[in-house]
Amino acid sequence: MRTQVGIVGAGPAGLLLSHMLHLRGIESVILESRSRAAIEATIRAGVLEQGTVDLMTEIGAGERMKREGFVHHGFEIRFQNRSHRINLHDLANGRTITVYAQHEVLKDLIELRLATGGQILFEARAEGLEDVTSDRPRIRFTTKEGAAEELICDFVAGCDGSYGVCRKAIPEGTVRQDYFRTYPAGWFGILAKAPPSSHELIYTHHERGFALISTRSPNVQRMYFQCDPNDKVANWSDDRIWAELHARVSGDGFRLKEGEIFQKNIVPLRSFVAEPMQHGRLFLAGDAAHSVPPTGAKGLNLAAADAHVLARAIGAYYSANATDLLEAYTATALRRVWRGQWFSWYMTQLLHRFPDAGAFDLKRQLAELELVTSSRAAATMIAENYVGLPLS
Amino acid sequence: MRTQVGIVGAGPAGLLLSHMLHLRGIESVILESRSRAAIEATIRAGVLEQGTVDLMTEIGAGERMKREGFVHHGFEIRFQNRSHRINLHDLANGRTITVYAQHEVLKDLIELRLATGGQILFEARAEGLEDVTSDRPRIRFTTKEGAAEELICDFVAGCDGSYGVCRKAIPEGTVRQDYFRTYPAGWFGILAKAPPSSHELIYTHHERGFALISTRSPNVQRMYFQCDPNDKVANWSDDRIWAELHARVSGDGFRLKEGEIFQKNIVPLRSFVAEPMQHGRLFLAGDAAHSVPPTGAKGLNLAAADAHVLARAIGAYYSANATDLLEAYTATALRRVWRGQWFSWYMTQLLHRFPDAGAFDLKRQLAELELVTSSRAAATMIAENYVGLPLS
Repeated sequence: MRTQVGIVGAGPAGLLLSHMLHLRGIESVILESRSRAAIEATIRAGVLEQGTVDLMTEIGAGERMKREGFVHHGFEIRFQNRSHRINLHDLANGRTITVYAQHEVLKDLIELRLATGGQILFEARAEGLEDVTSDRPRIRFTTKEGAAEELICDFVAGCDGSYGVCRKAIPEGTVRQDYFRTYPAGWFGILAKAPPSSHELIYTHHERGFALISTRSPNVQRMYFQCDPNDKVANWSDDRIWAELHARVSGDGFRLKEGEIFQKNIVPLRSFVAEPMQHGRLFLAGDAAHSVPPTGAKGLNLAAADAHVLARAIGAYYSANATDLLEAYTATALRRVWRGQWFSWYMTQLLHRFPDAGAFDLKRQLAELELVTSSRAAATMIAENYVGLPLS
Repeated sequence: MRTQVGIVGAGPAGLLLSHMLHLRGIESVILESRSRAAIEATIRAGVLEQGTVDLMTEIGAGERMKREGFVHHGFEIRFQNRSHRINLHDLANGRTITVYAQHEVLKDLIELRLATGGQILFEARAEGLEDVTSDRPRIRFTTKEGAAEELICDFVAGCDGSYGVCRKAIPEGTVRQDYFRTYPAGWFGILAKAPPSSHELIYTHHERGFALISTRSPNVQRMYFQCDPNDKVANWSDDRIWAELHARVSGDGFRLKEGEIFQKNIVPLRSFVAEPMQHGRLFLAGDAAHSVPPTGAKGLNLAAADAHVLARAIGAYYSANATDLLEAYTATALRRVWRGQWFSWYMTQLLHRFPDAGAFDLKRQLAELELVTSSRAAATMIAENYVGLPLS
């Protein structure tokens, strides 16, 4: 099998890249280990930066998002049982965020890709990459039927997430350096059939730990609370979950609306960056190269930005035989990635209580929360980073 | 011996308070354990916020400061061997800082206090406080000649620094809670007879650790570099000191000017706040109640602000028999204190390398340094806090 760009992974990075290449007349094939149904049912992130929304719209994938997504002009930071609004629209020059779930983005992109002749091989598992430093790299994969095959390409785009095979094709130590840190905290997430408790997201600091009240639709709400990353979902009955959420977010007239909990999960908070993001003809994008704690809502948006930078670079190669953008890919992508890592760390340290932080650090956090909710400069810094850097 | 306000300590807080009370027609006596010569020779902080400068000027102590101090319109943040200017004047609405050493401030205040009939008992050591919750608190002290005496007052102002006796008169645990943290770093400070290397302060981030290039006069320079807080001055020859400073600040055309080193010391980085700052008729001000790591240049300025708040509150008591400002003293002072603690922590974590921070944290710091030197919002947040909140 032969294509111009072999893409491993039908997540946001892989699908966006494939379609942006198509718009430039470049052919690609996506290999995705999971089924279409599984991808479209997996609930992940839900906050799209202005730049991601603009990109989706520009490539013709924004119609349903525009109709069904929720544009938020601000969000709330809550501490000492009171909410304070960060007015994104005012502070960030009219830019906003859109709440539209990642699996809805994927549904739209898969539909668009298939409707425009895109090739997505679902349940096709990439096993490894060969000859990535040659001009004929190959992806070994196993088909849905269990056959061993190869995809021969000009370029390989590794969009296969944190646990994919592509990153491993960049030799660790000699070529690749991994930057990693964990936080002594996890997020316990639930989905509940309930009406929204607030029309904007509420990021909550509380002595008992962080909580986030967010929404998916008028009938489904997404909520999180900080937990021990080694805790087990089985330890948390519905009653205990609601009691914990109420304890963290109640007060000053605010009352959380309950409903049937139909999903529970725990995610650890970790930061990761692999450098460089390229090796020969292999280019990593999205979680394959970096992951962030969810506090800054940056994961999906960084993946979209990588795809944008990579599509432009591959486009310049085919249209003008130019390799400068390809050579600059790592440097270009990493500027945004490290800014996103900083912001994700910043929001995490601002809002979470860590086991090794004492009474001094609690007071110092409250002083910073006072600052960001009373100083226009500090609030602007948060707003500009939350809505995201423009895609250049 | 009897006075209206007994003040323990002739540091910035005690001297400013005494003079501001004098201007309101209120009598005070200052007890100071050290000699006048010792106080006037001890080199400490050197950065005065706009509010501190305005306060000094307003009370008639600003003449020499205005003549000999250096008004700085900005400072530099240096990382990856390049300097980036934070334009305080532009970012903070025309406000600036003045470099004028703390012992020069003390000389001016002592001279002014003595010229206006103030009573400062040098080499008089406060031993303890009695009956601070009555309306007749007393300070037991030992005179220069070794005699045990008492100073009977309406109010006691504890301005006796981190290691003074006054704080101990607020019972720990039942009334007083101490908030404390240490940083795994110290500052190695030198004074050198050399011309200035820069006309503005240079806060330097380097893989080897923080460094600060500052100035005292055209002939004397103050420089610091981050060291192990348990290191010894004896381990550092002049040659080793210059080599370390050059390694951290050289590059991109900048060259540090050397000179004879005539003082070396190591200070640990720590944060401390005692709450409440008052108990009965005892009020703490300055380092007696709180101390900060020096990175934010806040110590002396927080002491001056405390004195301002306390003088106004005691003034209202004598002029109108009003106790509301006295009762609100802790709450009023702590708002600024915790903001100062936050800022001192912020600048410390931004610029220092800590032993437990890995390669990820170094990259994340560099991303934040990029942010604060390229985003107007982030730079404004730093500038507004560096020049300091206005005295209300």
